[in-house]
Amino acid sequence: MKKYFTNLAEHNFKIAIINGPNINRVGTREKNIYGVKSFDEFYKELIQKYNTISFNHFQSNIEGELVTKIQEFDVTCNGIILNAAAYTHTSVAIRDAISSVSIPVIEVHISNIFAREEFRHTSLIAPVCKGSISGFGLNSYDLAVQALYNY
Amino acid sequence: MKKYFTNLAEHNFKIAIINGPNINRVGTREKNIYGVKSFDEFYKELIQKYNTISFNHFQSNIEGELVTKIQEFDVTCNGIILNAAAYTHTSVAIRDAISSVSIPVIEVHISNIFAREEFRHTSLIAPVCKGSISGFGLNSYDLAVQALYNY
Amino acid sequence: MKKYFTNLAEHNFKIAIINGPNINRVGTREKNIYGVKSFDEFYKELIQKYNTISFNHFQSNIEGELVTKIQEFDVTCNGIILNAAAYTHTSVAIRDAISSVSIPVIEVHISNIFAREEFRHTSLIAPVCKGSISGFGLNSYDLAVQALYNY
Amino acid sequence: MKKYFTNLAEHNFKIAIINGPNINRVGTREKNIYGVKSFDEFYKELIQKYNTISFNHFQSNIEGELVTKIQEFDVTCNGIILNAAAYTHTSVAIRDAISSVSIPVIEVHISNIFAREEFRHTSLIAPVCKGSISGFGLNSYDLAVQALYNY
Amino acid sequence: MKKYFTNLAEHNFKIAIINGPNINRVGTREKNIYGVKSFDEFYKELIQKYNTISFNHFQSNIEGELVTKIQEFDVTCNGIILNAAAYTHTSVAIRDAISSVSIPVIEVHISNIFAREEFRHTSLIAPVCKGSISGFGLNSYDLAVQALYNY
Amino acid sequence: MKKYFTNLAEHNFKIAIINGPNINRVGTREKNIYGVKSFDEFYKELIQKYNTISFNHFQSNIEGELVTKIQEFDVTCNGIILNAAAYTHTSVAIRDAISSVSIPVIEVHISNIFAREEFRHTSLIAPVCKGSISGFGLNSYDLAVQALYNY
Amino acid sequence: MKKYFTNLAEHNFKIAIINGPNINRVGTREKNIYGVKSFDEFYKELIQKYNTISFNHFQSNIEGELVTKIQEFDVTCNGIILNAAAYTHTSVAIRDAISSVSIPVIEVHISNIFAREEFRHTSLIAPVCKGSISGFGLNSYDLAVQALYNY
Amino acid sequence: MKKYFTNLAEHNFKIAIINGPNINRVGTREKNIYGVKSFDEFYKELIQKYNTISFNHFQSNIEGELVTKIQEFDVTCNGIILNAAAYTHTSVAIRDAISSVSIPVIEVHISNIFAREEFRHTSLIAPVCKGSISGFGLNSYDLAVQALYNY
Amino acid sequence: MKKYFTNLAEHNFKIAIINGPNINRVGTREKNIYGVKSFDEFYKELIQKYNTISFNHFQSNIEGELVTKIQEFDVTCNGIILNAAAYTHTSVAIRDAISSVSIPVIEVHISNIFAREEFRHTSLIAPVCKGSISGFGLNSYDLAVQALYNY
Amino acid sequence: MKKYFTNLAEHNFKIAIINGPNINRVGTREKNIYGVKSFDEFYKELIQKYNTISFNHFQSNIEGELVTKIQEFDVTCNGIILNAAAYTHTSVAIRDAISSVSIPVIEVHISNIFAREEFRHTSLIAPVCKGSISGFGLNSYDLAVQALYNY
Amino acid sequence: MKKYFTNLAEHNFKIAIINGPNINRVGTREKNIYGVKSFDEFYKELIQKYNTISFNHFQSNIEGELVTKIQEFDVTCNGIILNAAAYTHTSVAIRDAISSVSIPVIEVHISNIFAREEFRHTSLIAPVCKGSISGFGLNSYDLAVQALYNY
Amino acid sequence: MKKYFTNLAEHNFKIAIINGPNINRVGTREKNIYGVKSFDEFYKELIQKYNTISFNHFQSNIEGELVTKIQEFDVTCNGIILNAAAYTHTSVAIRDAISSVSIPVIEVHISNIFAREEFRHTSLIAPVCKGSISGFGLNSYDLAVQALYNY
Repeated sequence: MKKYFTNLAEHNFKIAIINGPNINRVGTREKNIYGVKSFDEFYKELIQKYNTISFNHFQSNIEGELVTKIQEFDVTCNGIILNAAAYTHTSVAIRDAISSVSIPVIEVHISNIFAREEFRHTSLIAPVCKGSISGFGLNSYDLAVQALYNY
Repeated sequence: MKKYFTNLAEHNFKIAIINGPNINRVGTREKNIYGVKSFDEFYKELIQKYNTISFNHFQSNIEGELVTKIQEFDVTCNGIILNAAAYTHTSVAIRDAISSVSIPVIEVHISNIFAREEFRHTSLIAPVCKGSISGFGLNSYDLAVQALYNY
Repeated sequence: MKKYFTNLAEHNFKIAIINGPNINRVGTREKNIYGVKSFDEFYKELIQKYNTISFNHFQSNIEGELVTKIQEFDVTCNGIILNAAAYTHTSVAIRDAISSVSIPVIEVHISNIFAREEFRHTSLIAPVCKGSISGFGLNSYDLAVQALYNY
Repeated sequence: MKKYFTNLAEHNFKIAIINGPNINRVGTREKNIYGVKSFDEFYKELIQKYNTISFNHFQSNIEGELVTKIQEFDVTCNGIILNAAAYTHTSVAIRDAISSVSIPVIEVHISNIFAREEFRHTSLIAPVCKGSISGFGLNSYDLAVQALYNY
Repeated sequence: MKKYFTNLAEHNFKIAIINGPNINRVGTREKNIYGVKSFDEFYKELIQKYNTISFNHFQSNIEGELVTKIQEFDVTCNGIILNAAAYTHTSVAIRDAISSVSIPVIEVHISNIFAREEFRHTSLIAPVCKGSISGFGLNSYDLAVQALYNY
Repeated sequence: MKKYFTNLAEHNFKIAIINGPNINRVGTREKNIYGVKSFDEFYKELIQKYNTISFNHFQSNIEGELVTKIQEFDVTCNGIILNAAAYTHTSVAIRDAISSVSIPVIEVHISNIFAREEFRHTSLIAPVCKGSISGFGLNSYDLAVQALYNY
Repeated sequence: MKKYFTNLAEHNFKIAIINGPNINRVGTREKNIYGVKSFDEFYKELIQKYNTISFNHFQSNIEGELVTKIQEFDVTCNGIILNAAAYTHTSVAIRDAISSVSIPVIEVHISNIFAREEFRHTSLIAPVCKGSISGFGLNSYDLAVQALYNY
Repeated sequence: MKKYFTNLAEHNFKIAIINGPNINRVGTREKNIYGVKSFDEFYKELIQKYNTISFNHFQSNIEGELVTKIQEFDVTCNGIILNAAAYTHTSVAIRDAISSVSIPVIEVHISNIFAREEFRHTSLIAPVCKGSISGFGLNSYDLAVQALYNY
Repeated sequence: MKKYFTNLAEHNFKIAIINGPNINRVGTREKNIYGVKSFDEFYKELIQKYNTISFNHFQSNIEGELVTKIQEFDVTCNGIILNAAAYTHTSVAIRDAISSVSIPVIEVHISNIFAREEFRHTSLIAPVCKGSISGFGLNSYDLAVQALYNY
Repeated sequence: MKKYFTNLAEHNFKIAIINGPNINRVGTREKNIYGVKSFDEFYKELIQKYNTISFNHFQSNIEGELVTKIQEFDVTCNGIILNAAAYTHTSVAIRDAISSVSIPVIEVHISNIFAREEFRHTSLIAPVCKGSISGFGLNSYDLAVQALYNY
Repeated sequence: MKKYFTNLAEHNFKIAIINGPNINRVGTREKNIYGVKSFDEFYKELIQKYNTISFNHFQSNIEGELVTKIQEFDVTCNGIILNAAAYTHTSVAIRDAISSVSIPVIEVHISNIFAREEFRHTSLIAPVCKGSISGFGLNSYDLAVQALYNY
Repeated sequence: MKKYFTNLAEHNFKIAIINGPNINRVGTREKNIYGVKSFDEFYKELIQKYNTISFNHFQSNIEGELVTKIQEFDVTCNGIILNAAAYTHTSVAIRDAISSVSIPVIEVHISNIFAREEFRHTSLIAPVCKGSISGFGLNSYDLAVQALYNY
């Protein structure tokens, strides 16, 4: 089990939020599963709520770009909130990226993935994350911020 | 998917915390996995922190007593925070009890169950819970309180 | 294959009905699956209908208490009607208890368990029961009474 | 879940019994499993016992003929009692035929199929039947008649 | 991989359509899955649309009769359009019949079999067919005619 | 394990040969697998070679007709040589028919089924046959005749 | 099951063709599987044949770019013909993208994927597509055009 | 791997024997599997034989009570002999209780569980016990006493 | 598929019989499975019956010695009759040896391996043998001799 | 279930200890798993401790030699203590040898095989042994001696 | 099995090295698995050591870019050394790209993938590569160069 | 993970090559898989090429003899090159022998085992070897020599 070390000053807390494929569609499609609010709307509220924390947001549909961003955020922030979406269930590459960073990564999901199709019940990244939060809509990100901050 | 209804007045928010087998040992044994603080110590802090919320705590090593308590809390509180511990992976009975109640149930775990043995990766209760939080130590309960309150 | 012997006089026919976890909720929750009548209401009707038979009813959410009752009824009645509910799919202990008694045990289910989730399709107790009846609502018990009586 | 409708007058209750492969041998072979009475003998007794009900019996070793008969009985009787025998475990065609009819179909088995070989534990037709009765010898059919009548 | 040879004159194109179990019910039952038009109605339209092609239609609920017909059509037409229906998922016999003929066989399905139950996702006959078309309602047959003709 | 009894006089030895689906094509198609001689040609030679034995031959593509014939031959001959072909791998009905007869049944295959596709490696009927012979072309039947005769 | 709606005028029919990894090599490599014609040559013929339809073609070896394009085509055309190639068997991300669009998506394959390696028999995207066409070489696209147009 | 420490004086050796479900029936039922002597009879002999050792015996049919007792014996004796019976194969809760104690736990079984049904071949508790002894009838407990004493 | 070539003169036919582990015990132990005659007794009879054929017999309990003998017999005889016994189900080494020889190898078994434990149903060597004969007692070897001779 | 018979005089008790591959290395390598004492040192102590029993010890790395020795010891001693080591998990040949002997065989393991790699959790020989003892270091052999003697 | 042809002059030997996701982190993170030297440092040494060979290096975290590069190198060099890293276990797309090129591709891994997590034991690309080298640290690339050169 | 220590002087480098079953046939049989050169011819060339290294070669078809040799070479050479051939996929005994030695063992294969039958894709010994090299014909041994030397 790797150990996280955070030699960044507490008063300068930085959190990166990385979103995977199709999260750019949240709020416009399949609202019965993901709700009616877009991530961008939610993100604005989050920044306002936690105005002493620096946030950074990145979304991509490309697995390898998520890998690259996880690597990049390693030295520049205190923790990563990662919604790998579909890649949660298939990506060894993202798992390896998480294993290679020294800051804590928290897995979040908007929907309760365990209440959906069988293939969504397995997370390749959960074993190397600090913890997991799923099923609370966009509020899952909010809880993750607090989890990171209290960590 | 069942719908939760909460006709209880908001200013009278009640949360039940139900803990499964061996959670009574947290803080005294296997500290590398579960930490050094006992649940009772943590519980006192939680009550103080959220002093406008009424809490109720029940722990049992017996699967059927957990079933009974989930049934009982159905009409008397706004939500249940459930750490089914070992029964998470084996109990259809607890799953059925959760399905039968009309208030939201949130699954919590102290450790990251996905980073442990293979048989701990499957949760029989996750599909019928509102959401899941795992891996944040006793802080998982704290996050669940907020999840319930914001719900 | 064990042989059942019933040296009790026929005019003194005794049947035990044992119900497992959450059956105490039938009629009040998940009515689309289990119907609107409670077991207690149904039980009164059953006693009236078969007024020459002595009935005994026991319900518990605790697996081990069901085990104990199966053992106890062994010497005191002609047959057992068992709705092990959720424990049907997980309990080797109840299976072993059934194997250890000399009177016939009939497995009943209110709903058609084969039309529900995959994990409900496997019954650990069916192989050691005399027979199985499922899917006829509370009427499954009625059919089981006749099955026992004609046996 | 399909809904059954029965616009036939109750005083004119019609039940079709459909038997699958090798049931024509019951009573002559493998008596330790199936007993010593032939289905024809039993059928005569059944007709006498329920003399206000019209019965129709069909047996075939050919899967497709069972499919055809299930289709035909759809408009001409109130319910079907089906012992698909060996085809229980292998026939999607019979399953589809059951799904296509609007009257209830009840699955019966003479022996307790769960106490036999592993491959007999899976029923492809159970999920689309109204209910299942197995293990009571030829008496399973009798219970099914009552189940249909009370339905 | 077998090679198809067609020494029949092109101006005399003959296509056989073979339908498996329960296809005779299309249009009358389970309309949400199979639509409201019967195969016979559709077949008339198809003959009119492709009036230079000779069609032959055979439907049976019996697996072995489908085997026999596939064998018979081998020498008498240019290609077979086969909707094996339920037997798609269970019949090695039909697969072997297809392997034994020298004309191309095209697998069609009215519904999208991959969007239905797990056991319908496996086709035993697909590996030995020329190609597969599924999910376009009765129009799947129309596309198959064109596929054969252009072949 | 059932016991075979043969109260028929030895000088009047009768053997039934039952062939399953597509065996009527042997010698005309897929010659690389099944050879160039048809079963009928071979059968004539067999009758000549063993001219003191009475043979009976039945071929059908229909599973249920094979079941029926196995039942019928039970009382009229000393043993059955069965090439169930494709049904070898899928038919519980034929298995049950074999279990129900009192004369020995020998399983034969023209090709070596273990050197072909995975799904041909499992035989549902082998466990209830006297023995199995596969891979010797049509000569497999010849060996089976001797196996039955020496039995 | 999502419903497709197409409020675009029929005389202005637009179809997007999306090709996945290695399709840019068709016609130059592994000609025994994919044939000798390149997709570009075929595409020119297709445009000529259906000159009243507007086509749009996109090929990428990058999973996430396919996701992005499926999202983009949602509002700009009447349907998508998708050959996800290798990603067919591994991509939950593409599946989710298909689920998120309101126009029909048709799965096509040049080769018969069911006649190839085991891992190509499973399609993660088939369950959320309108229908599937495979095995007809580049002609599979042609059939898909007609399927979309008639839809 | 946890380390056992035993700071109890050797001359004051204490052993707890914990028996799971249905062990209270040993000697009265299924004697072909479990023998004719009851555990109580055997226990008296054991106490006499090892009269310098303090024994403590607990039997329960309830999984959770076994969990509780394992916890309780942790501080009061030198080792536990555990026959979890049916719960051996299903209980993560008992496994977790064993993991949480600092004294050695030895798994015993009266019958040879590997010579019985498939589901009895897997022990969830064996990996966290010191060692396992099975198949020697009630003598298995005697061997376990010596194993503990020599430890 | 390898081709067998036999450039040995027919009038000088040589057959090697190779027996695997525990075959040296046949006739003395487990007579209900293997019969009462030892292989040596049977072998004498076989030599007498086929007195124009040269036989060679080798038995070993050691897998690698069987491998060596198969290699050696390659150039010195016309065919091998191999009863690999227990190694049938576990030995890739023997399979590879068979693949490496140019003479036909016939697999024989005394008992019907398909009527025994599950793990005996899989033969690693069958796919590379010419054919298989099982279930006819020691007579299986006799049939194999004829199969080789007629080959 | 085979029956053991021991017509040898009790005062002349003989036990054979058979050790499988790599046991000759115990005490010199992987001491964290197997301890620091060699089997030979232990064996001397064992002989001294039970000086009224005749012991015989055999070790081999060759599976077939273990088979041969099990056969040989059948008539010459009262019981066998077998540590098949690696062959425990792969050898059907040793299993068959055990089945063929009439004296009891006890399976022992130095380490707790259930706490090691997954493939060590399955024992092919356990089902045919009298009983199993594992996890007590070399002391496992000592317990086995007592188990045999008390048998 | 595809055949490699290399019509390039030997004195002009060109090798492409393609590295997959996270290989850019080697030497800085998880040094216990991957060592302390970065790939760039190693690469410089490699170029110096084999100064008569032209090398080309490409690294990407994006699966599709690896696919594209494999296609591009097909016509421009004599062989490819591929460390697909995480994509080794999940990418059918890269497998298909390898199948489509005519030059040999060698699979390398820095760590011994078989000594790590279960999901790393399966390589989707190994079956279509010329050969595999794993476990020798960065030296694996050096060995691959020699393997290519000697080829 | 065990650590290798090599206190042998470097100028006296000794390598043992151990070959498993059927490798003695390389060059004479199945040349399409293993090539036309025998191992002995290759071995002579290898000795000449690396004339400062002492080589030792051992081949056996017997699993246990390979185990013994691995043990013996432990103290007498610097590393082992092991081609376990067929035993690669089945031998826990060889795995345990490798685990017990303190010098590095390198797994080699002549053919690419991943391009062959499914059962050859799993190596029981790979996890305990230093590294693996497969698919380069006899040249795999040459690469292994260099891997050992550079180690």
